[in-house]
Amino acid sequence: MKVGAVLIDIDGVLYVGDRPVAGADRALRELDRRGIPYRFVSNTTRRSRRSVAGRLEGLGYSIPETRIITAPVAAAAHLREGGRTRCFLLTTPDARTDFEEAGIVAVEEGADAVVVADAAEGLTYASMNRAFRLLMDGADLIALEKDRYWMGADGLMLSAGPFVAALEYAAGKEAEVIGKPSGAFFLRALREIGMNPGEAAMVGDDIVTDIGGARACGMKGILVRTGKYREETVRRSGIAPDLIIDSLADLPDYL
Amino acid sequence: MKVGAVLIDIDGVLYVGDRPVAGADRALRELDRRGIPYRFVSNTTRRSRRSVAGRLEGLGYSIPETRIITAPVAAAAHLREGGRTRCFLLTTPDARTDFEEAGIVAVEEGADAVVVADAAEGLTYASMNRAFRLLMDGADLIALEKDRYWMGADGLMLSAGPFVAALEYAAGKEAEVIGKPSGAFFLRALREIGMNPGEAAMVGDDIVTDIGGARACGMKGILVRTGKYREETVRRSGIAPDLIIDSLADLPDYL
Repeated sequence: MKVGAVLIDIDGVLYVGDRPVAGADRALRELDRRGIPYRFVSNTTRRSRRSVAGRLEGLGYSIPETRIITAPVAAAAHLREGGRTRCFLLTTPDARTDFEEAGIVAVEEGADAVVVADAAEGLTYASMNRAFRLLMDGADLIALEKDRYWMGADGLMLSAGPFVAALEYAAGKEAEVIGKPSGAFFLRALREIGMNPGEAAMVGDDIVTDIGGARACGMKGILVRTGKYREETVRRSGIAPDLIIDSLADLPDYL
Repeated sequence: MKVGAVLIDIDGVLYVGDRPVAGADRALRELDRRGIPYRFVSNTTRRSRRSVAGRLEGLGYSIPETRIITAPVAAAAHLREGGRTRCFLLTTPDARTDFEEAGIVAVEEGADAVVVADAAEGLTYASMNRAFRLLMDGADLIALEKDRYWMGADGLMLSAGPFVAALEYAAGKEAEVIGKPSGAFFLRALREIGMNPGEAAMVGDDIVTDIGGARACGMKGILVRTGKYREETVRRSGIAPDLIIDSLADLPDYL
């Protein structure tokens, strides 16, 4: 497969649970050696970009923070570009720092936008009700992602999606989704390395948000068999990856 | 209008905010005098039936608890009839008593059903996540109501609907709605007084849940201009009440 650049998912591709994927780091160094540019694109919304980079470092990776594009970072840039700088941030305190560093002002009244992340314990009746009232007063609804759930240490965990759906239902408003599978999210990452979708491939473990999202905006989709990969899920999705590989470690062999 | 029985909404019909509707109590006594049976049907899910009756007493009404059918009471009876007696109750502690008195056992694991009310501060990430996991393990999703919001003392308040929508989205399951506008809810109240829908009228201030729901199951719908009544909302609803009256006080004049 001939590609000029690669976008790479993080959770389930660089690590699974608390363990790095064997050979993944060597594959990244091989991409460096060949001069193939790459960026990391993640729907993680509980952590700031700095925390994500720190976690990767703890797992043995040496990845500059600037190569990581997360939904909070993309949302903050998107909001600032649109002049919507006063936002009600339904996020974790950690993810909030991505917004503050981008010049977004966290407000409780008169918000331009309500930003919904997987805010964990920050999602309460009171915070949801405040978000709802701001939406009824005219604020836009921004969803960092609309995933249903993720696999936590002790079982399934609700992602931001259900809480976004709740606010859409309450306020009668559709959310603008920032993270994968939004095409704008992939394009933002590609713009940083000066590539067009037709020249790039996305590597991920989620058949819908990674592969479906990438293919919908003209990129190639490479599915890895690590992380949440399940053959059954792929078959039922109706989405055909351009390539399926055992793990990121094998990527250089196919490029 | 010739009717053999009347169902009456509570909030916005018997009282608005903290004040009883003028003449409403006299109208009820006139129904008693003429021998027209009536019951109260309410989507209130924060309070137990006993609390609702107590509140009405505080406002000067003398209404036996057994004449009041609320969504928690109807849900508890419905669940027991279906043998689904082990339930995860996402309700206020007050509303929970309606379930316990009906023989429903509140459980945190192995639930037959997840019951979602407007649980106010009881709606947290943790409680929503527990409900979600139980749904993924096969529990049924029971919504006491699916209203979007209600008018509180200091502004709009989220009702159970958005949280039901969140769980439907997360678990990929449709909720069974117990309260208005469910036809089964009206029929349950009518059964207690031995009447058929064709003989009865529903009096309420909500064009959709009261009037639309009543007409859909064959009852007449009488809209009052108290409570949340807005001419504009009625026009946009596309629902035509059989009668619009200024308040419950005027009801006897039309029967």
